[in-house]
Amino acid sequence: MTRRIDLVADLGESFGDWKMGDDDAMLDVLTSANVACGFHAGDPRTMDRTVAACVERGIAIGAHPSFPDLVGFGRRAMDLTPHEVRTDLTYQLGALSGFAAHHGTALAHVAPHGRLGNLVAVRRDYAEAVVEAVRRFDERLIILAQDGELATAAREAGLAVGIVGIVDRAYRSDGTLVPRSEPGAVIHDPAEVADRSVRLVTEGTLTSVDGIDLAIEADTLLMHGDNPGAVALSREVRARLEAAHVDIAPLDAARLR
Amino acid sequence: MTRRIDLVADLGESFGDWKMGDDDAMLDVLTSANVACGFHAGDPRTMDRTVAACVERGIAIGAHPSFPDLVGFGRRAMDLTPHEVRTDLTYQLGALSGFAAHHGTALAHVAPHGRLGNLVAVRRDYAEAVVEAVRRFDERLIILAQDGELATAAREAGLAVGIVGIVDRAYRSDGTLVPRSEPGAVIHDPAEVADRSVRLVTEGTLTSVDGIDLAIEADTLLMHGDNPGAVALSREVRARLEAAHVDIAPLDAARLR
Amino acid sequence: MTRRIDLVADLGESFGDWKMGDDDAMLDVLTSANVACGFHAGDPRTMDRTVAACVERGIAIGAHPSFPDLVGFGRRAMDLTPHEVRTDLTYQLGALSGFAAHHGTALAHVAPHGRLGNLVAVRRDYAEAVVEAVRRFDERLIILAQDGELATAAREAGLAVGIVGIVDRAYRSDGTLVPRSEPGAVIHDPAEVADRSVRLVTEGTLTSVDGIDLAIEADTLLMHGDNPGAVALSREVRARLEAAHVDIAPLDAARLR
Amino acid sequence: MTRRIDLVADLGESFGDWKMGDDDAMLDVLTSANVACGFHAGDPRTMDRTVAACVERGIAIGAHPSFPDLVGFGRRAMDLTPHEVRTDLTYQLGALSGFAAHHGTALAHVAPHGRLGNLVAVRRDYAEAVVEAVRRFDERLIILAQDGELATAAREAGLAVGIVGIVDRAYRSDGTLVPRSEPGAVIHDPAEVADRSVRLVTEGTLTSVDGIDLAIEADTLLMHGDNPGAVALSREVRARLEAAHVDIAPLDAARLR
Repeated sequence: MTRRIDLVADLGESFGDWKMGDDDAMLDVLTSANVACGFHAGDPRTMDRTVAACVERGIAIGAHPSFPDLVGFGRRAMDLTPHEVRTDLTYQLGALSGFAAHHGTALAHVAPHGRLGNLVAVRRDYAEAVVEAVRRFDERLIILAQDGELATAAREAGLAVGIVGIVDRAYRSDGTLVPRSEPGAVIHDPAEVADRSVRLVTEGTLTSVDGIDLAIEADTLLMHGDNPGAVALSREVRARLEAAHVDIAPLDAARLR
Repeated sequence: MTRRIDLVADLGESFGDWKMGDDDAMLDVLTSANVACGFHAGDPRTMDRTVAACVERGIAIGAHPSFPDLVGFGRRAMDLTPHEVRTDLTYQLGALSGFAAHHGTALAHVAPHGRLGNLVAVRRDYAEAVVEAVRRFDERLIILAQDGELATAAREAGLAVGIVGIVDRAYRSDGTLVPRSEPGAVIHDPAEVADRSVRLVTEGTLTSVDGIDLAIEADTLLMHGDNPGAVALSREVRARLEAAHVDIAPLDAARLR
Repeated sequence: MTRRIDLVADLGESFGDWKMGDDDAMLDVLTSANVACGFHAGDPRTMDRTVAACVERGIAIGAHPSFPDLVGFGRRAMDLTPHEVRTDLTYQLGALSGFAAHHGTALAHVAPHGRLGNLVAVRRDYAEAVVEAVRRFDERLIILAQDGELATAAREAGLAVGIVGIVDRAYRSDGTLVPRSEPGAVIHDPAEVADRSVRLVTEGTLTSVDGIDLAIEADTLLMHGDNPGAVALSREVRARLEAAHVDIAPLDAARLR
Repeated sequence: MTRRIDLVADLGESFGDWKMGDDDAMLDVLTSANVACGFHAGDPRTMDRTVAACVERGIAIGAHPSFPDLVGFGRRAMDLTPHEVRTDLTYQLGALSGFAAHHGTALAHVAPHGRLGNLVAVRRDYAEAVVEAVRRFDERLIILAQDGELATAAREAGLAVGIVGIVDRAYRSDGTLVPRSEPGAVIHDPAEVADRSVRLVTEGTLTSVDGIDLAIEADTLLMHGDNPGAVALSREVRARLEAAHVDIAPLDAARLR
C-alpha cells in the first residue's frame, strides 16, 4: 500500500518591505501552505503574491490566522473573549479567501498561528470559537492541528482534521512535544529529521526523547523555511520521502473525515 | 409604471469602543448598506454585528472599501499604485464577505469610501484597479458610483452599475456636485430633500443650483445617519417616497446591466 | 489645617474622527489629567488638543500608557515581557512629553491605563518595568496608583506616589474594591459619591460595603467624564469639596515623597 | 585647515521580528544616525536597542520621522494637512526622545524620512510644519536636509541646518539629483563613490552627470546599510576619508548656525 503525506509550511510571512523566510525555495518542497492573513504578518501584496505562487504550483492554500499583534508576530497571548477570537477568525478567513477567489481557487484548510495555535490546543472555548468560525465560513475546510482541543472540537463538529507531525521536535513519551526551553527540544540534524519523517510516514512511529517508540498519526509534516538551514532540511525530508516512494500530495478532506 | 429606488447609507463605521452613527435607526430606513471593512473604520465585531443586523432586516450588504488610513477615516488621499489599490480592495472584499458567509448571505455591491471614492470617479487607473478587484472576486457584484470613471470602467467590463443620487447636495448645471466649500452645497431642509428625492425618482429630474432642470439617473439614493438630524431627514425621505407609491427595494443586478 | 486633594480623570481618549468622553466639561472639574498616548486611544491631533487645553487651564498633565491594543481599548491582557512593557512605556512617555514640550510644559505624573493598570497592581515584574521606565525617563514624575505592587515598587525606587481614591466604587473591608461583576460595586448616586468624597478627604475614611469604617489614604480622586451622568457626578463632587473648604489642587511631588 | 564631515545613515528600520539593514556593521562607520520612530519602521524594542547602541559608540542620534504608513514604509505620499504633519512630527520626536532620555542622552537632529523627506524639500507648508514641530520641541535640534524648502524655512526660523551630500547619486548641473528612473542615477562603484566623497569634503566640488564641476556644500554624507554592497561601500568611503586626514565627527550645531 502506498503511503501518502502532505508537506506544509508557513508562507507569506513578509510584511511590506520586510522579508521573512525563503518562500520561493519552499514552493519546491511543499504541497500545502499556511498563508498569513495580515494580523501577525502578511499584507495585501504579500498575500496576493503568495496565493498566486501557490496556485501556479498546485500547492493547497490554507489560512494561518493569528491574534491581532503585528509587532509581536502573534507570539504573545492576548486575553480575548471567544467571540473576539471567532470574529477575528472570520475576518482573516474572508480576507485570504478574497485572494484565493481572485486567483481562481478556494481555501483548503485552516491552521491557527503562533500563540493562538498553542492556546486552541488546550482551551476548549477558543477551540470552539475557531471551529464555529470555520464551519460557518466553509464547512469543507480542513482543520490542521496537533492532537488537542481544536482537533477534538473540529471532529465533533463534523469538520475534517489533518493531524500535523512535527518531525524536527523531540516528543515525550506521552506524545507531547519537549518544550523549547529544554535541551534537545529541537532536532537540527537533517539526516535524523529525514529518518524520523520516513519512519513516521511509513511506519506511523516516532522514537520519544526517552527512547520509547510512539505510535503517532500524521497527515501532514510541518516544514520550515525561516533560514537556509531549515530550507535545506526541508528539501532533505522531501527527497528522502520520495526515495521511500511516499506519495507526497495535498490533504484530501474526504479521507480525513 | 411603478417607480423603484434603493436607499443606501454607510453603516458599521464604529471602531472598537468608539461609536459612529445611529446604525439602529438607519436599519429602518435602508434597503442597502455600505459596510466598512476595517481600513477606515469597522473592526471584526462591528462588521459581524452590522452584517447580522442587515441579514435580519433583509438589507442588501455592500463593501465600503477604503485607503488604509484609520486615523484619517479614509479621507486623505494616498499615492498608492493601482496594484496597491487592487490588492487592498481584494483584502477588504474578502474580509467583509467572510462575515456575509458566516451569516448565510453574500455581498451584493461595492461602493468605495471617502477619498478613494472621489478618486475612482476621476482616475481611470484607480477605477480599473477597483473593477479588476471586483470582477475577479465576484463578477455578480454591483458597482455603486456616481457618473465618472468607475461607472464607465465597470460598464465596459460588463459589471452592473448602480448610479447613486445625492439628494441632499446641490448639483451644478453640468451634473456635478457643488463643492462642499461653496455656500449652498448641502441642503439641510428635510422637506426640500424629500421633495427632491420624490421628483428625482418619479420624474428623473433635479433642479440645479442655477435653476435648470437636470435629467439625472439614479438607482439608489444616498442617505446619512451621522447625526439625529440626518436620521430624521432620511426617515422623511423614505416616508415621502412611500407616500408617492415608490417601490423601495434593493438593487437588482439583472436590471442594471 | 486645610485639607488638599487633586481631582483627576482620563482625557484625550478620542481617536481620529471618533469621539469619547466630554473632555470640555471635565476641564472645569479637574486639576490633573491622565492623557492617552496613542496605544489604546489618542492620536497626535487629540493629544495636541488635550495637552493645549490642560496647559490653558493649569491642569497637570500625566501619561496614561497602555498595552498596544487600539481595537480593544487596552482592556485586554497581553502577555508581554517586562522588557516589552518597559519599552512600550518609554515610547508613550516620550510621545506625550513631545506635546507637553510643544506647549511649554512637562509631564507631572504617570497612571497606567486599563488592563495594564490592573496588572501593575498585582504583578511585581510589570510594576518594576513601569518604575524603571518612569525613573529613567524623568525621576520627578509622580506615579498614580492604588495601593499595590506599583505603589510599593515606586516608593522603593524613590519615586513620588499619589494614591488614587475611587469614590464611586464600593470598597471591601480589606481595602480592595468590590469587583464590577458584583452588585453594588459602582455607586451611582451623586449625593452619596460626593458625601464619600468629602469624608475621604476631610476625615480619611470610607465606609466599606459591610458597614466598616476604613482608614483610606488618597492624594487624588478619580473622576469620570464618559457620559453626561458621570460629568454631573464629577461636578457635584467638586462643588461639595469646595463647599467643605477643601483645597483642590494638582499633586505636589515634594509632599508625596 | 582640517576638513570635517559627519557620516550619517538610517538606522533602526527593523520592525518586530522583521530585520532590515545591517545596523551592527554601520555602527562602525557612522558618526550620526537617523533613527526610525515607529511610523514607517521601528518598534519600541528596536528603538531602544538602536539608541543604546548609538550611545555606546558615541553616535549622535537624530529622529527620522515619517508619514504614518508602516505597510508602505513611508514611501507613499499622503495628503496630510500641515497641522497633521506637525502633530505627527511632535509625536515621533517625543517618542524617540523618550529612548534618548532613558539612555542618558538627547536628540541631536531631525531628518524627515522617505516621501515626507522629498515633499518638505518642495512644499513650503510642509517645511514650515516640520520647522514648527522641531523649534517648539527643542530649538537646539539640527535640521538635516538637502537644499530646498526645509533648509530655507529652518534657517529663517533660526534653526541650525546640516546639508546632506549624496555621494552615491549623480547630480545634474543645476545641483539637483538625477532621478532614480534615469540611467546612471545611482553610482555603484565603491572607488568612484569614495573618490567623490573625498573630493566633496576636501574641495567642496562634485562633477555633474554632464561633466561640470559643481560647488556643493555638505555637512554630512548619507551612507547606506541596506545590503552587503552598501555596507562595504560605506566602509570604503570612511577609510578613504580617514586616509585623506578628514576629521570624521558628529555635527556641531554651533558651527551650522
